[in-house]
Amino acid sequence: MSVRRRGFKEYTRLEDALEIIRSEVNEIGSEKISYQESNGRVLAENVKSKVSVPPFDRAAMDGFALKAEDVFGVDENNPKELKIIGSIETGVSKDIEVGKGEAVEISTGAPMPSGANAVVKVEDTIREDSRVNILSPVSPGENVSSKGEDVEEGQVVMEAGHKIGPAGVGMLANTKNLEVKVKKKPKVGIAATGDELKKPEEELKPGEVVEVNSYTLTAAVHETRGEPIRLEMVPDKKESLRKTLEKAPDFDMLIFSGGTSVGKKDLVPEIISNLGELLFHGIAIRPGGPSAFGMYENVPVFSLAGFPAAALIAFEMIVKPALDIIQGKEDYSERPSVEAILDRGINSKLGRIDIVRTKLIKKEESYTAHPVRVTGSSILRTITEADGFVLVPEESEGFSKGEQVKVELFNRSIQISKQEV
Amino acid sequence: MSVRRRGFKEYTRLEDALEIIRSEVNEIGSEKISYQESNGRVLAENVKSKVSVPPFDRAAMDGFALKAEDVFGVDENNPKELKIIGSIETGVSKDIEVGKGEAVEISTGAPMPSGANAVVKVEDTIREDSRVNILSPVSPGENVSSKGEDVEEGQVVMEAGHKIGPAGVGMLANTKNLEVKVKKKPKVGIAATGDELKKPEEELKPGEVVEVNSYTLTAAVHETRGEPIRLEMVPDKKESLRKTLEKAPDFDMLIFSGGTSVGKKDLVPEIISNLGELLFHGIAIRPGGPSAFGMYENVPVFSLAGFPAAALIAFEMIVKPALDIIQGKEDYSERPSVEAILDRGINSKLGRIDIVRTKLIKKEESYTAHPVRVTGSSILRTITEADGFVLVPEESEGFSKGEQVKVELFNRSIQISKQEV
Repeated sequence: MSVRRRGFKEYTRLEDALEIIRSEVNEIGSEKISYQESNGRVLAENVKSKVSVPPFDRAAMDGFALKAEDVFGVDENNPKELKIIGSIETGVSKDIEVGKGEAVEISTGAPMPSGANAVVKVEDTIREDSRVNILSPVSPGENVSSKGEDVEEGQVVMEAGHKIGPAGVGMLANTKNLEVKVKKKPKVGIAATGDELKKPEEELKPGEVVEVNSYTLTAAVHETRGEPIRLEMVPDKKESLRKTLEKAPDFDMLIFSGGTSVGKKDLVPEIISNLGELLFHGIAIRPGGPSAFGMYENVPVFSLAGFPAAALIAFEMIVKPALDIIQGKEDYSERPSVEAILDRGINSKLGRIDIVRTKLIKKEESYTAHPVRVTGSSILRTITEADGFVLVPEESEGFSKGEQVKVELFNRSIQISKQEV
Repeated sequence: MSVRRRGFKEYTRLEDALEIIRSEVNEIGSEKISYQESNGRVLAENVKSKVSVPPFDRAAMDGFALKAEDVFGVDENNPKELKIIGSIETGVSKDIEVGKGEAVEISTGAPMPSGANAVVKVEDTIREDSRVNILSPVSPGENVSSKGEDVEEGQVVMEAGHKIGPAGVGMLANTKNLEVKVKKKPKVGIAATGDELKKPEEELKPGEVVEVNSYTLTAAVHETRGEPIRLEMVPDKKESLRKTLEKAPDFDMLIFSGGTSVGKKDLVPEIISNLGELLFHGIAIRPGGPSAFGMYENVPVFSLAGFPAAALIAFEMIVKPALDIIQGKEDYSERPSVEAILDRGINSKLGRIDIVRTKLIKKEESYTAHPVRVTGSSILRTITEADGFVLVPEESEGFSKGEQVKVELFNRSIQISKQEV
């Protein structure tokens, strides 16, 4: 009996769906790029330093380079007077030898003169012409960055799988890794299906609706470091859907929205099943339940709901982990979350995971979680108004008002609501 | 007495520094862009819907549209048989009137026929030719999305200051806001200063180091939704620094790195003071203490440390909030954080905020916080190896091993470490 005939009598558990995805999806290949383009990319190999950083012993403070032994035990009442025998500024290497009772004026970052083993900060000194009074002791090595202290030549500084951030870009530059091997950005084809769809720019006739999923999913793929490619809208016809599915090998992933439920026009899972392999259809989550997943010519194919909020939540739950795996992240990356107190109860059905969109309100140091009211899974407002979501697990019937819950965040930073809602 | 002579005897508290920045920095202007380009941008005006969403009453499920009153009280043992008088698919509007004892086969998203007020899911029906048995009751309105249920025409759907995410892009498309007024991206000039600096591509002579700050800060500005412009490296000469400062009016913000401490070549704060207004120099944070801030011709100018890790931390602490304010976010956005147990102690000096870079290790459901060892503020590894940081407040001397601390996260998602460190 086909899924369409029997409806969704069985739903795959989210955990099992992710396990299926994990076992099917392959890591993408790598490419060489410039360190300047590397922010946000995922390393495909360990990065080893080609140089020592810093490349020489240098002053970590502005002040005076000296022998630490000369100033042991000094203080403001018992300063030690040293003779200034020269000065070293950044960018120049000078051949000065510091002897006992001597000091060299030095700038932060300048190479240490030989003989000196520490720097006293300028604040802890009083200078008088060619003499300087040292008011504070230092230990050998104090305020000195020694050669290779940050990184030794040949040392692994970042490992394969690491996502390069701003500091990583600097690390590549600093260690002279001017080119770096990173995972390719997965190319993700996005096809909205449905006879009722019109582009946002077009006039709607009765019964027609605006196609929004290809735009929301494009943005979501961007945020997951993929390269989205919007395809032409596809009518609910087998032949058209087949032609779109056959384009899958041009991409690293293909996402359909719409046509994934159990109605007459819900043909996407059937097409995947006929031409490729359908691995699940229907997940025990809400919204996003009708989602399907399969493989066509070794390319992962997702079939998401046509309702925009359901499509985006399903993206978050099953497509994003797949994009992580493709980019070589063995562990699904975790969403940051905050603990918050529910300001109203949440009801959920046993046996499925409810993804309850939730607004956060900060009061002093604690958060209140305000579940956004939902009347239909079409409702994008439930996401634009929410800061994150509460997952109600399969074995729970919900949470009561006043209970503490974990709110997983959609965005990197929380916009704090001042007013109550 | 100039700062250079007296060293940093006084440091501005971080909170006061942010207050100064907040009082000086002005919001940037706005521009109109396409909804397709709007992801990640900040709204400059309230967005009102130009249409009702959905534009008509429609089925929220595949099944049969009917009068709810016809099937009150039915169940699997006492089904109700209705006559199928037609079918409606998505994308078409049909002139069918559903009477008592009648049903219309309907697809998710298709317009409701007149007379019907609910939809019974296909799973709860058994069809036999032109008759259908209904196995489950529905309430009036059940499985129907009524016109304007998501959004009514004229309703404000997103407010000024809201950061548009993937759902927001869809909301703009859905409400026919094809153009939207957003805050401009602040143009941020970035100038690395220092006689000792060479580009990553160049060979180093003794005493020279690689210039990395313009690359790390470029990436950091990108992540804060600004538009970075890398300027030529500036030698530690008043005339060169003056010329660079005079370029500030080409940008919405200018950032110098290097030359901000109290050494001989630390000329940036002095130049800002001479030609514009220097508002603070020296903040009670570590790293990042030597940072300065001022205004030149109404443009905010930051002077950050030359040491790359210190520059990036100072960016996080004072420049990013300024970029938020420029983009019209009245509240500084908050970093997501996790609570974690320290696996070793942290020492800090009273009177300053210590920003301790910290790795997170997940063990089952809890996190261990592993402070990264620091030997100098130059060390980018302290950031590439860290997931976030612990702030040790001014009035604290640190935390002990085993204490619970809040780790604020650098990145949106946490990369979980499997092994212990």
